[in-house]
Amino acid sequence: MTTTGLTSDISLDVVADLAAQLRVDSIRSSTSAGSGHPTSSMSAADILADLVGRHLRYDWDDPGSPANDHLIFSKGHASPLLYSVFKAVGAVSEHELLNGYRRFGQRLAGHPTPALPWVDVATGSLGQGLPDGVGVALAGRYLDRLPYRTWVLCGDSELAEGSIWEALDKASYYRLSNLIAIIDVNRLGQRGATDLGWDTAAYADRALAFGARTIEIDGHDLSVIDHALIEAASHTGGDQPTVIIAKTIKGKGFSEVEDSPDWHGKPFPPDMADRAIAELGGVRDLVVRGPVPEPARQGPAPRHPSTVDKGEKSQPGKDWPEYKPGDMIATRKAYGDALVALGARDDKVVALDGEVSNSTYASKFAAAFPERYFEMFIAEQQMVAAATGLAVRGYKAYASTFAAFLTRAYDFIRMGAVSGVHLRLVGSHAGVEIGADGPSQMALEDLAMMRAVHGSTVLYPADGTSTVALTAAMADQPGISYLRTTRGSYPGLYEPGEEFRVGGSKVLRSSPADQVALVGAGVTLHECLRAADQLAGEGITARVIDLYSVKPVDAATLMASAEATSGRIVVAEDHHPEGGIGSAVADALLAAGQRDLSVGISLVHLAVREMPGSGSTSELLAWAGIDAGHIADAARRLVTGA
Amino acid sequence: MTTTGLTSDISLDVVADLAAQLRVDSIRSSTSAGSGHPTSSMSAADILADLVGRHLRYDWDDPGSPANDHLIFSKGHASPLLYSVFKAVGAVSEHELLNGYRRFGQRLAGHPTPALPWVDVATGSLGQGLPDGVGVALAGRYLDRLPYRTWVLCGDSELAEGSIWEALDKASYYRLSNLIAIIDVNRLGQRGATDLGWDTAAYADRALAFGARTIEIDGHDLSVIDHALIEAASHTGGDQPTVIIAKTIKGKGFSEVEDSPDWHGKPFPPDMADRAIAELGGVRDLVVRGPVPEPARQGPAPRHPSTVDKGEKSQPGKDWPEYKPGDMIATRKAYGDALVALGARDDKVVALDGEVSNSTYASKFAAAFPERYFEMFIAEQQMVAAATGLAVRGYKAYASTFAAFLTRAYDFIRMGAVSGVHLRLVGSHAGVEIGADGPSQMALEDLAMMRAVHGSTVLYPADGTSTVALTAAMADQPGISYLRTTRGSYPGLYEPGEEFRVGGSKVLRSSPADQVALVGAGVTLHECLRAADQLAGEGITARVIDLYSVKPVDAATLMASAEATSGRIVVAEDHHPEGGIGSAVADALLAAGQRDLSVGISLVHLAVREMPGSGSTSELLAWAGIDAGHIADAARRLVTGA
Repeated sequence: MTTTGLTSDISLDVVADLAAQLRVDSIRSSTSAGSGHPTSSMSAADILADLVGRHLRYDWDDPGSPANDHLIFSKGHASPLLYSVFKAVGAVSEHELLNGYRRFGQRLAGHPTPALPWVDVATGSLGQGLPDGVGVALAGRYLDRLPYRTWVLCGDSELAEGSIWEALDKASYYRLSNLIAIIDVNRLGQRGATDLGWDTAAYADRALAFGARTIEIDGHDLSVIDHALIEAASHTGGDQPTVIIAKTIKGKGFSEVEDSPDWHGKPFPPDMADRAIAELGGVRDLVVRGPVPEPARQGPAPRHPSTVDKGEKSQPGKDWPEYKPGDMIATRKAYGDALVALGARDDKVVALDGEVSNSTYASKFAAAFPERYFEMFIAEQQMVAAATGLAVRGYKAYASTFAAFLTRAYDFIRMGAVSGVHLRLVGSHAGVEIGADGPSQMALEDLAMMRAVHGSTVLYPADGTSTVALTAAMADQPGISYLRTTRGSYPGLYEPGEEFRVGGSKVLRSSPADQVALVGAGVTLHECLRAADQLAGEGITARVIDLYSVKPVDAATLMASAEATSGRIVVAEDHHPEGGIGSAVADALLAAGQRDLSVGISLVHLAVREMPGSGSTSELLAWAGIDAGHIADAARRLVTGA
Repeated sequence: MTTTGLTSDISLDVVADLAAQLRVDSIRSSTSAGSGHPTSSMSAADILADLVGRHLRYDWDDPGSPANDHLIFSKGHASPLLYSVFKAVGAVSEHELLNGYRRFGQRLAGHPTPALPWVDVATGSLGQGLPDGVGVALAGRYLDRLPYRTWVLCGDSELAEGSIWEALDKASYYRLSNLIAIIDVNRLGQRGATDLGWDTAAYADRALAFGARTIEIDGHDLSVIDHALIEAASHTGGDQPTVIIAKTIKGKGFSEVEDSPDWHGKPFPPDMADRAIAELGGVRDLVVRGPVPEPARQGPAPRHPSTVDKGEKSQPGKDWPEYKPGDMIATRKAYGDALVALGARDDKVVALDGEVSNSTYASKFAAAFPERYFEMFIAEQQMVAAATGLAVRGYKAYASTFAAFLTRAYDFIRMGAVSGVHLRLVGSHAGVEIGADGPSQMALEDLAMMRAVHGSTVLYPADGTSTVALTAAMADQPGISYLRTTRGSYPGLYEPGEEFRVGGSKVLRSSPADQVALVGAGVTLHECLRAADQLAGEGITARVIDLYSVKPVDAATLMASAEATSGRIVVAEDHHPEGGIGSAVADALLAAGQRDLSVGISLVHLAVREMPGSGSTSELLAWAGIDAGHIADAARRLVTGA
């Protein structure tokens, strides 16, 4: 056993020893846990030893330092290697490594999460770490303007994910020379050989074509690795990301498993582990720290490549936009106006969009704060990943596109929740309300999708005033928050300055004699109001609830309303019937029913139950059965018992 | 006005006239509708005129002919161009084009859908048509073994979607020389210039690096276009897909808007339309048909590049696998066994997997029927798109991966529903049940996501027998069907041959004196059974329901159970609380409540309400509060009113 004290300038001989230790500890930790990926860790051990020992600038005693480099394991299943690195720098104890890995209640999870202070983002869904790294590097180059580098270790299997190419496309577009991706080409995936095997030239051609500088290396020759990392680091003042393509051997260092397709994701049984550790020269207890960064000193702002081609130029002011009751406004436009005011008040607010900013009105922010706006073109996965990376660096990212196209990024949104980052997503053009463009552009699953995300907030305002309030509230909202906006213009319902609590609702019509409650949000709220007017003409008094906060939902108001109306409720939503507003109401009332509700519930749920086509908004709302006429009909039947 | 009769060998002069007609009709249709994308149509009119007039082999009188080439508009917003083509070949009348486009109740929707017999797949969410085309081309080369070609028109903006690169990666891996992508590089997206503008060389470099043959052309020079299409067609016996990169001008043919960033997605007002039509030489009424295909004659089967590296070799038999009650089996393994039997019975059954076939047990099918198995590597979007393309050609595709990673393909699944294709999706390793791998690998949103898809079927069997029955049922299920399987092994509950109706459920325990109902599916059903045993020991009789069909849900059995147990129900699910089994039960009971239910409902919903970490299955089920102990506790409280 060798022990070396703390050092900041270690030789390649020590790196070699460190690499052996990382392999040994990857084996020990996974064997102790009875699961994990030792062979996927061993292929990248030489690279990580050299990177961490000699290149990564990181103050392990101050993981929050803005000067630190960032290290992201896009191949999150190589967590034994990452945790062995943490042990090697003295951040994690040997005890924790051998007793905490993959155990219940412990922070050394099967795949890395930010429960560990040295981990930026949760990985484990492949093809996400590099896109996240683009976000961190965007922050570094354009917002923080600090010389930290973002190093991302990728597997070769994950290069089959399109998101990797979205990431490199944006990395080159935004000239992210501070981003260095290292591809661990061990040629083997879970079930066998990868698509391209050891054809490192093919990977290099692809990365080059996507605008990266490329370096092909033998990923087990420390001298070659070291030169590659020096070269990559020397270009961080340039205008291209670097991709290092390292040919490696899965299970490298243990001859029994090297390059074997049968040892993916399997810990070695204890006897094999013993043989492997012996072959690797035994257990080591090196504590090795590489260079620490210079204190953070902000550099000049480089020119921003994301030009604002369109959108009215605005003089950003801090005053919240005001819309009067009755004035017609599309909530998507109110969102754009609010975002500009928010940006003027808080310079941590940034915006991204998926090439539809003139529809979502993110264009207003882009015109007001071009240096804080990042055009992601039509790459929704990368858009959400960039927002995630920006959130890692403390920015409050608002990412917008058509609501339907956020479905493209669902895995990234889900992983954002695992990361515990705060993301603000905005989807415009939801539901059949959009009209002629047809179902491909109609979000009819977005509320269900967003509600199911852990810790999420789902908001759907119906007018300009509430949109402004909720856009502002999102800035301080933890986790994933989602705002759904509408395409069309509708009359203002609230006075400027009215408060809208996340988790609240508004009762827009009520009387002591209400016979039925009409619950809507967004476009259907306006239909509920029209329905209430129709019903009033017939002598039926209807309570109308603006359920702008779909999650958390205002169960108290819904219960009080149910009590007042003898349980008669009509819910209308511009969404498929599953998982949206109707489910939010049903879940709240049923959960309440077991303890607090004295009446039976008679709920009619109006939703989009067939596949829509094109048409006008009014034609489609009527066709779907969610317009004022259908709402009034449903209420009438409930009240009369017909 | 020029009129030409039907012809099958038209000159480039006629093609030029046809191109002008396509532009004029794109303008007329969109102006008549008051919305649409004339300028995005005009940029590709020359290419389409030459393709349809001289190269596309298509019998417009028999769109179902297996010999026909396929034409997919990946840039679905160019629907005016596509519909103008349909008019030009006499398939759609001028009256329909001018009165049906984007109108309510009409088939000429804002973006193309298979409501039109000449449209294979719905497009409009960009970056999907080419991946879908890969599926059609896979069918053509390896299954149909017919010489038809698949032509896909792409926009340049959509090349920012990673899915395009997943598609080209798979197209080259599978040597799809029968796939020809044409990129309409008009340099302008919705809000301004694209990432790469007119840098056609950059697109060519990328396509080349991804294994395609590339041809760069001027997309407005008919002679050049014609040569390119001849060249592309001449290589369809080769081993590479072809990508034609055409430099074009948005709005080409109308000088007022050519190359203007201000005219995306806007119809011309009538006065502008008049000027445009005049500049284009006026309205035409050409009816032009290109070549028709030779009668379909199946060729030899080419060697299949997707090797089966792993998985036990099986001798496929038609007998359904049988598992006895009490025998331990993982439902994912039963799925693999069932799929082999299904494959032996029905040669239209094919399988795809996202590089985890040894975990999902699609490996069994791959070993039994290598020629009908397509490895998609880690590219879930392409996996679902390939299944979609295979479905277009009548194959029954089963596509599997970890359930969590199907979130990656949500936009493709959603669009599959718009297309009306029948897809069978299988997600293994769901929920906290998977244990040590941690939350990145735990599907906890999949049931919500899949339930919200229009017309979907969501199945979650708990044992081998039910898995076999439901895997078989999916073969005949319309629309998107989803099967959730579990990682761990659990005891068989049913005798071999037991029938499982989609939309049904099984009452596993019941008596006339049941005090509470326990509802579970998959892993939680086993916990419900254990809870019932615990409760029985305390003198509490519990009904246990296997809710294997989450959508459609068996409302009748749930209602009968509620009546029998005085409304006391405990639902336990390994999923986040929103949109899954609890919502399915709540929706069913609340919908029933308004007419048919005589009791109040006291429902306790046990679900995964926090973000899990790693651990053992039993630790995590207990932590989440969805194990037998928590289910029994909830039931006890309901019954005793504590």
